Amino acid sequence: MQSVKVVFHIDEVDKWPLLLANVRNLVKAVDLASSHIMVLTNAKAVLAFDGNALLNHIDGIEALAGKKVVFAVCQNSLNGSGMAVDSLPEYVKVVPVGVLTLIEKQADGFAYIKP
Amino acid sequence: MQSVKVVFHIDEVDKWPLLLANVRNLVKAVDLASSHIMVLTNAKAVLAFDGNALLNHIDGIEALAGKKVVFAVCQNSLNGSGMAVDSLPEYVKVVPVGVLTLIEKQADGFAYIKP
Amino acid sequence: MQSVKVVFHIDEVDKWPLLLANVRNLVKAVDLASSHIMVLTNAKAVLAFDGNALLNHIDGIEALAGKKVVFAVCQNSLNGSGMAVDSLPEYVKVVPVGVLTLIEKQADGFAYIKP
Repeated sequence: MQSVKVVFHIDEVDKWPLLLANVRNLVKAVDLASSHIMVLTNAKAVLAFDGNALLNHIDGIEALAGKKVVFAVCQNSLNGSGMAVDSLPEYVKVVPVGVLTLIEKQADGFAYIKP
Repeated sequence: MQSVKVVFHIDEVDKWPLLLANVRNLVKAVDLASSHIMVLTNAKAVLAFDGNALLNHIDGIEALAGKKVVFAVCQNSLNGSGMAVDSLPEYVKVVPVGVLTLIEKQADGFAYIKP
Repeated sequence: MQSVKVVFHIDEVDKWPLLLANVRNLVKAVDLASSHIMVLTNAKAVLAFDGNALLNHIDGIEALAGKKVVFAVCQNSLNGSGMAVDSLPEYVKVVPVGVLTLIEKQADGFAYIKP
């Protein structure tokens, strides 16, 4: 199986089911040990990580985090939604500026996909 | 005229008019013989290829397929919409995992555009 | 601070607040003198530049244009919305085919972000 480098970008809460389906299909088709798969979350999409939110995709997210998918969240967006870093699941990686991470990853050879 | 390598990504049915307008503008501006233009369709956007669907952009799609634009469709998404491969127009290329094709094309130097 | 090359793509009018917030966060985090930040506008998103439009993000746009962010607009899309080039603010750069600019920039090492 092949190795991939990709960053998925999500900024709308209602795109989570589509994004998770995309990533689930991908992890079945690649060599996870040698691949780098990141989901970069900014804007209102960070609300998926709010434990109090009705909309709850945490189960799907956790299953993928367990398969080496990195879930990164924009600090600016957390601030904008009034969410505290220490309320996030442990496996979530907080980055200061989400769009800067999207740029850095692409400069490092990652493909970009916006479901 | 210049040569380009690009993959357009569509995953929502209602984005077909915008996507087709984008591609139509592009094919007028580049050297088609030496260019590689792909439209990668996944998720619910595959319904545009369902002959029975009310929403029918097949004419616009066929005109571009005749100009060397490659229309690729995700097998997982066909399954999810209950569509059979042999119901698709002949010029459609079926790929097993759409997002993997998006990654491979970008790794091969294709630009990515999501209308 | 680091230097970046990125093209943001917008084709829907209602994405302007999100796009401008993204770019505002970015310009605070990078070295503007050595960076190349472009916002490529096509389809209905060009209406933000219509002086008569109710929806008016011109203030936010102008503030960023003053920080070396390049605002490029697709000529085809202006035509489609019945807008004249000479009605645009002076700092706007008109390009003949927006999607071709998106391809050229990526071929030139720019990251692509679609908010």
